[in-house]
Amino acid sequence: MSEQQTKTASTAITPTRAQDFPEWYQQVVRAAELAENSDVRGCMVIKPWGYGIWENMQRGLDAMFKQTGHKNAYFPLFIPLSYLEKEAAHVEGFAKECAVVTHHRLEIGADGKMRVAPSAELAEPLVVRPTSETIIGATYAKWVQSWRDLPILINQWANVVRWEMRPRVFLRTAEFLWQEGHTAHETEAEARAETMQMLRVYETFAREFLAVPVISGEKTESERFPGAVQTLCIEAMVQDRKAIQAGTSHFLGQNFSRASGIQFLSRDNKQEFAWTTSWGVSTRLIGTVIMAHADDDGMIVPPRIAPTHVVILPVTPKPDTRDAVLAAAENLRQQLSLVKFHNESLQVELDKRDLGGGVKNWEWIKKGVPVRIELGPRDLEKNSVALSRRDKGREKEFLPANQAVERIAEILQSIQDNLFARALALREQHTRDIDSTGEFYKFFTPLNKDKPELHGGFARAHWCGSAECEAKIKDDLKVTIRCIPFSEKDAPNENGACICGCGQPSTRRVIFAKSY
Amino acid sequence: MSEQQTKTASTAITPTRAQDFPEWYQQVVRAAELAENSDVRGCMVIKPWGYGIWENMQRGLDAMFKQTGHKNAYFPLFIPLSYLEKEAAHVEGFAKECAVVTHHRLEIGADGKMRVAPSAELAEPLVVRPTSETIIGATYAKWVQSWRDLPILINQWANVVRWEMRPRVFLRTAEFLWQEGHTAHETEAEARAETMQMLRVYETFAREFLAVPVISGEKTESERFPGAVQTLCIEAMVQDRKAIQAGTSHFLGQNFSRASGIQFLSRDNKQEFAWTTSWGVSTRLIGTVIMAHADDDGMIVPPRIAPTHVVILPVTPKPDTRDAVLAAAENLRQQLSLVKFHNESLQVELDKRDLGGGVKNWEWIKKGVPVRIELGPRDLEKNSVALSRRDKGREKEFLPANQAVERIAEILQSIQDNLFARALALREQHTRDIDSTGEFYKFFTPLNKDKPELHGGFARAHWCGSAECEAKIKDDLKVTIRCIPFSEKDAPNENGACICGCGQPSTRRVIFAKSY
Repeated sequence: MSEQQTKTASTAITPTRAQDFPEWYQQVVRAAELAENSDVRGCMVIKPWGYGIWENMQRGLDAMFKQTGHKNAYFPLFIPLSYLEKEAAHVEGFAKECAVVTHHRLEIGADGKMRVAPSAELAEPLVVRPTSETIIGATYAKWVQSWRDLPILINQWANVVRWEMRPRVFLRTAEFLWQEGHTAHETEAEARAETMQMLRVYETFAREFLAVPVISGEKTESERFPGAVQTLCIEAMVQDRKAIQAGTSHFLGQNFSRASGIQFLSRDNKQEFAWTTSWGVSTRLIGTVIMAHADDDGMIVPPRIAPTHVVILPVTPKPDTRDAVLAAAENLRQQLSLVKFHNESLQVELDKRDLGGGVKNWEWIKKGVPVRIELGPRDLEKNSVALSRRDKGREKEFLPANQAVERIAEILQSIQDNLFARALALREQHTRDIDSTGEFYKFFTPLNKDKPELHGGFARAHWCGSAECEAKIKDDLKVTIRCIPFSEKDAPNENGACICGCGQPSTRRVIFAKSY
Repeated sequence: MSEQQTKTASTAITPTRAQDFPEWYQQVVRAAELAENSDVRGCMVIKPWGYGIWENMQRGLDAMFKQTGHKNAYFPLFIPLSYLEKEAAHVEGFAKECAVVTHHRLEIGADGKMRVAPSAELAEPLVVRPTSETIIGATYAKWVQSWRDLPILINQWANVVRWEMRPRVFLRTAEFLWQEGHTAHETEAEARAETMQMLRVYETFAREFLAVPVISGEKTESERFPGAVQTLCIEAMVQDRKAIQAGTSHFLGQNFSRASGIQFLSRDNKQEFAWTTSWGVSTRLIGTVIMAHADDDGMIVPPRIAPTHVVILPVTPKPDTRDAVLAAAENLRQQLSLVKFHNESLQVELDKRDLGGGVKNWEWIKKGVPVRIELGPRDLEKNSVALSRRDKGREKEFLPANQAVERIAEILQSIQDNLFARALALREQHTRDIDSTGEFYKFFTPLNKDKPELHGGFARAHWCGSAECEAKIKDDLKVTIRCIPFSEKDAPNENGACICGCGQPSTRRVIFAKSY
């Protein structure tokens, strides 16, 4: 128990959030065995615990996509350069971060070393998809002839590549995993409704699965997806008070259907361009969850996306009671596995590894498994167990084994709710209505020179709508408009003057913040 | 009903299997809306119906992988050229079909057109993974220090790229989807056992989910995976009597652990190299299922991998009975959806589209949905329905609606079993023990010059073990040894002489065939 005692005195993660948030993040990712940087610049290895979280995110989202009438399909990894060029704003937006395939063979060179075969140069370079509007658009153009072929409601789960100059695991990586929905519609109204519907799906998913409260709204023109008419987003606050964009849904108007030629014969017998949308979330959500919920002892996984809900840690100090403890632990595992949590079987792991109890316990704390149950010879006598909730620090609750089984689903839901409540409280604590330019600048000025990441949080302030004012604030403070919220609750409609001091009037507040 | 009547006279797919098998295959893929070629050379678009089949394959396999102790993870898409080079046989095997990323940016050239930015050339080219032994090996080398870190049992679901010169949808595509398991073990015996275990998983999956009988065995040296010590495989016969390799499991010995430096301190305190395996199946399985089961009316999807098990086709000739028919159809849909088939809810679709009954019926026949249920005004009066099994040609069975619900799971299992039995009968009919060289050559000579694909089938013949004899037969006939079967049932142990006529003795038969 010596390691456990030592740890009790300090924290499992060094540095702490307060000491150095960016470094704390990296250390949580490492300690929880979520992912690691690979030797390929900017590309990560997602380890089983991190991938298990992603699988559960996928399962939850996929069911919601199917409930809203979408089907999955798969489109090519490679996009011919000429396709990307078809939409001018789009190619401009992505040109600087494209990985490009130029050759299709290797050969042994004159020096005996393997090299790219010069004779195998492609006639047209292929871009590894940074997003798939253009290649999917070219396909839809073939599928759509009449209004009867619409809507097309398709999603794909895929990897994409954007060559990031300052990669950071889960948050900005050269390769990441995501889903991208691509739909085509007969009317503008239908496409706009789809765009909003999918944003609401993301909002619900963030709230119910990730336990992350988000603000839904619209991006300003400067923050729009390249080629979109309108970009909707969900924005979360994480524990360093910065914003993170957790999902986007784009109304693309007819921009991409014109570029790709998605045309149909309308009910009035006219050739018209389809109205399209696209929407996506990525493995960045894992980074969001870490920064929203983890603490100075490591990761905290919301139960609804946890690869393992409960770990049972048998305490076997003496050989003569070992078998009895293990048998009781196995019995408990079986009983817990029969419990359903949100209609799915509980995932329960019995950690029988021959390691010290303290070592194992701390491994699971750092991984953020929602519930740990310790069971030793004394518990056996009393038919009790020691249950620890990951969201409740180092508390232990002693309770009869059968009660642990009876109450586990309720305990997990309580953890889920508590994580959400904490994240919401944090956001509310660090969100302020600001009406004075001076106060605004002060709000975003680091409290401490050594910690540029510490600042006020979210400012709800007036903005006149001018791109210049937006750019000035970005240049001065590295602060951007995260969104123009939909809900009155997030930003009341009221008259005011632009926060930058230009003197122009504004009819509603927007959310300003530093962001990932 | 005119289209239906017309179709009855001929077949939905032209040409038929007998007329032109390769073209029939392409037409089935098209008519069933499984996939299509994209504009990117060799890359396919997997359409929703095809992708739905793949999702069900994934679900079935993934559960089997997890049951055998594996977890999923994700590794980078890109492999540095120097990694690929580490295993000499491996890079040689894949060099000719590698897509290579050489640049990471696009820019506007002097002519105003978008081009690859010459200044953004990568210091080291990155190969788009054709398989991941080397990049995963480099990662395992970091993870493994002691025998306590072993075994590592990981699988990844991913896309891979092999630049195919003669692409064919699902069978040979430049990009395809697959799973690749990569494991590392303390001992040779454990790694060999893993290799065999996973082959048995594939064998079971092919039999129970795909309704495809396979022969399990070992590849000869010339057919081994580049870098492997031993390659095990499952081989199926499809309807043109050719073989298709449906899955492989490789015992890699210490070849890749030496190349990547996967070393550990053993129980005896010595530095040792780990023993590794890899195993995979791909979207090629969809091609296998098509060629194994589809007929001259289109696809036939085995129920266990069908995205939709039952389609309900309401027949609504007159407006005055339309509402009643649709209500009864919806009621039937709800009842059928409550039925479980292999512990999963039945997927039932009610096709309410405003199209002619014949058109809709033929669409579903071509897609290969296992069961179609028609329900019209007359059926309503009698409370009956007309049920058609896709495996039973154009037969219809009239039965009371409640019986359809009661019997549906049994009917689906009967279809599954029937497909397997048919495929097995086909293979047995076209498998022959051959002992004379002349007969062997005749067996593989096309029956008809215009149809080079028609030939005998599988020959069980003796082989002395020499690579020269194997090469001679391949040169002469385009016939290869598909495998050295494990089971006495597939190839009895008995003495004989090499089929090529070299005169050398042999102790067992092997499977010779033409193949995909």
